[in-house]
Amino acid sequence: MNAPEFVHVTYLAHGKPGTDWQKKAQGIAVGLTVGSWTDLPEARKESMQKHLGHVVAAEEIGGGADGQSAALLTIAYPTINFTPDVPALLTSVFGKLSMDGQIRLLDLQLPERFRQQFPGPKYGIDGIRQQLGVQDRPLLMSIFKSVIGYDIDALAEAFYQQALGGVDLVKDDEIFFDETYAPFEQRIEACRKAVERASEQTGKHTLYAANLTGPVTEIFDKAKRAVDAGASALLLNVLTYGYDVLHRLAADRAITVPIMAHPALAGAMYPSAQYGIAAPVLLGKLMRAAGADFVLYPSAYGSVALERAETLKIASALREEQSGVHRSFPVPSAGIHPGLVPFLYEDLGNDQIINAGGGIHGHPQGAAAGGRAFGAAIEAVVAGRTLTEAAETSEELRTALTLWGNPSTR
Amino acid sequence: MNAPEFVHVTYLAHGKPGTDWQKKAQGIAVGLTVGSWTDLPEARKESMQKHLGHVVAAEEIGGGADGQSAALLTIAYPTINFTPDVPALLTSVFGKLSMDGQIRLLDLQLPERFRQQFPGPKYGIDGIRQQLGVQDRPLLMSIFKSVIGYDIDALAEAFYQQALGGVDLVKDDEIFFDETYAPFEQRIEACRKAVERASEQTGKHTLYAANLTGPVTEIFDKAKRAVDAGASALLLNVLTYGYDVLHRLAADRAITVPIMAHPALAGAMYPSAQYGIAAPVLLGKLMRAAGADFVLYPSAYGSVALERAETLKIASALREEQSGVHRSFPVPSAGIHPGLVPFLYEDLGNDQIINAGGGIHGHPQGAAAGGRAFGAAIEAVVAGRTLTEAAETSEELRTALTLWGNPSTR
Repeated sequence: MNAPEFVHVTYLAHGKPGTDWQKKAQGIAVGLTVGSWTDLPEARKESMQKHLGHVVAAEEIGGGADGQSAALLTIAYPTINFTPDVPALLTSVFGKLSMDGQIRLLDLQLPERFRQQFPGPKYGIDGIRQQLGVQDRPLLMSIFKSVIGYDIDALAEAFYQQALGGVDLVKDDEIFFDETYAPFEQRIEACRKAVERASEQTGKHTLYAANLTGPVTEIFDKAKRAVDAGASALLLNVLTYGYDVLHRLAADRAITVPIMAHPALAGAMYPSAQYGIAAPVLLGKLMRAAGADFVLYPSAYGSVALERAETLKIASALREEQSGVHRSFPVPSAGIHPGLVPFLYEDLGNDQIINAGGGIHGHPQGAAAGGRAFGAAIEAVVAGRTLTEAAETSEELRTALTLWGNPSTR
Repeated sequence: MNAPEFVHVTYLAHGKPGTDWQKKAQGIAVGLTVGSWTDLPEARKESMQKHLGHVVAAEEIGGGADGQSAALLTIAYPTINFTPDVPALLTSVFGKLSMDGQIRLLDLQLPERFRQQFPGPKYGIDGIRQQLGVQDRPLLMSIFKSVIGYDIDALAEAFYQQALGGVDLVKDDEIFFDETYAPFEQRIEACRKAVERASEQTGKHTLYAANLTGPVTEIFDKAKRAVDAGASALLLNVLTYGYDVLHRLAADRAITVPIMAHPALAGAMYPSAQYGIAAPVLLGKLMRAAGADFVLYPSAYGSVALERAETLKIASALREEQSGVHRSFPVPSAGIHPGLVPFLYEDLGNDQIINAGGGIHGHPQGAAAGGRAFGAAIEAVVAGRTLTEAAETSEELRTALTLWGNPSTR
């Protein structure tokens, strides 16, 4: 018989000055596990003991919002109370509790045996690097932008232009659902051919993360059909479909491509100081456990910004060593242009994906030039050179820095 | 060819004083649909026109949080941009936008043809009343509490005690996942027998909403097995599993029982003034469209409270007349005791479910007496009598009012 394991969850709670936080924490530990405790008969207590949550810490902290008292509460929940999946975990530790006053899920520690029952990334950073044959630099990804209503030929041409710029991956826009103009499998096949066509010129391979959508009853078969059609990656809006869809895609051996998690809807949960779920849990720990090979999140530098400390915690959750679990690629996103590459590189080094939409498509000489501008920027930072130096030998980078700026020189 | 339809979405946005809200709204309308507009070639504009979102209204309002400017922005999104399901809808209208500054999804109007492609409730209020043979009063539901670790016999006995009290429905606790002690189908079968046993004494039927959990790849088969085992309703943690699981359960004709939506995790999204999704959308409109026959939400009166105005909007979204769509039962919940029945009745009248856990199980004479106390309270309010009058002929109600109070007399 194995020793019991506990999931440790830390909450930030706000309440009236004078709140008895120890009592509040005790109420959570009991209320979210056995329901009631003090009034149980002794015999029943004995059989329920192993299901009972307990308070690890309950300490008042300064700086509560609106003059209120704030506290960090850490509760240990026995893993035997739930099944090893995100819906069960979140329902248990933040289901009804999320509605009970001002409370925010700040952190969550999964114990070893429990965590090993989650799939984790199928390929992870190392597996994806192997597929692409690229070891020693950040990868570069381009987003299919403004392609709503495109037919297959137009899509293939747009893909070709992006691949020609030397990007390692192209991802669908997450709002690309249209099956009328560009049916899923035909789109995958057309882009696969575009990869080959570009590869003849660049000598490089390009992955295509196609947006996996549709009824949850059909999505697993659809993923397999995508693989059969030659898909090289799949994009999933994890939070609107539910983490368990990611989990089961990652656990399915027949789905032999990496999965990219899009953070759509995450902003409904992480930004408030008093409510919701912290981004490093939402987009870091849970995404990796459920099996995302890549995770997109707002970078600290672009148009849709997240605090730098939060982005570093997300990346840390995705990349820190865990025995038997692959590392996920962090993909800081939104409003990225070549001038921001030095900042991203300083933060995360090689094991990240530089991801751009407008920063590639908006290049005055077109998407292929946009990709080459990024390529030159990445080559420069890895070699320890400045973008200004690199721009001397790359006209595309020079143009990009003139248009969008080169803030690292400031 | 049908006229184009649009989903109208209203957001509450906060920003610096002096923000150009018309421009912000225009950016959303373009950015979440075609991506870019002004710099497109004319020929491309023509083919993209039908995909373009447009601004319906952008007006600054007073009372922005933290001295900021606040505005209501309403955008019309062409329905041809997405498939008729909640993941596609939410990803499109609040996916990346949720992360873009201080923005909250306040309301959402689904146009007629688009809405008709959603399943809606399979039975709704009228169908459930028909199953139970109860027309002219609120229904009464009891929650299985503190049963974690119970074996089948103990569960059946606990069910029997609740049914004996005359409740119309019993629901599982939403954190009840344990399959070791009480496998799903055995649990359903044992509770079905307990219903029969109690019915011999009370002459009443009782529905049992069993918590449907497990891998999303198996959940639809499991639901069918539950129906085969004699399940009379299913409980689903919709927000942790994803709305599309509810949608596909509701759309599946082989699943011939009503579905109850639990709001677990909703508090991670609705309480902030600046972020997230308003409760009437999250727990009202989307739940009904996706097919919930019953929806639980925090009442305005109990331990986990929601503002009264918000609870009324949820109930309105669940019950308002919509051609061809059944009405869903509102289930105001959390900390309900018999003394609160007059308030619930005044707010919502007959077409609601009075739902209690501790308010039934915590009754000093046991769960059956707890149910009867509620029954007496419901009978009284429907007949226009006060609880104080009713307590004269119901010892159980008298005990409950003494223990938990009778605030309507104040």
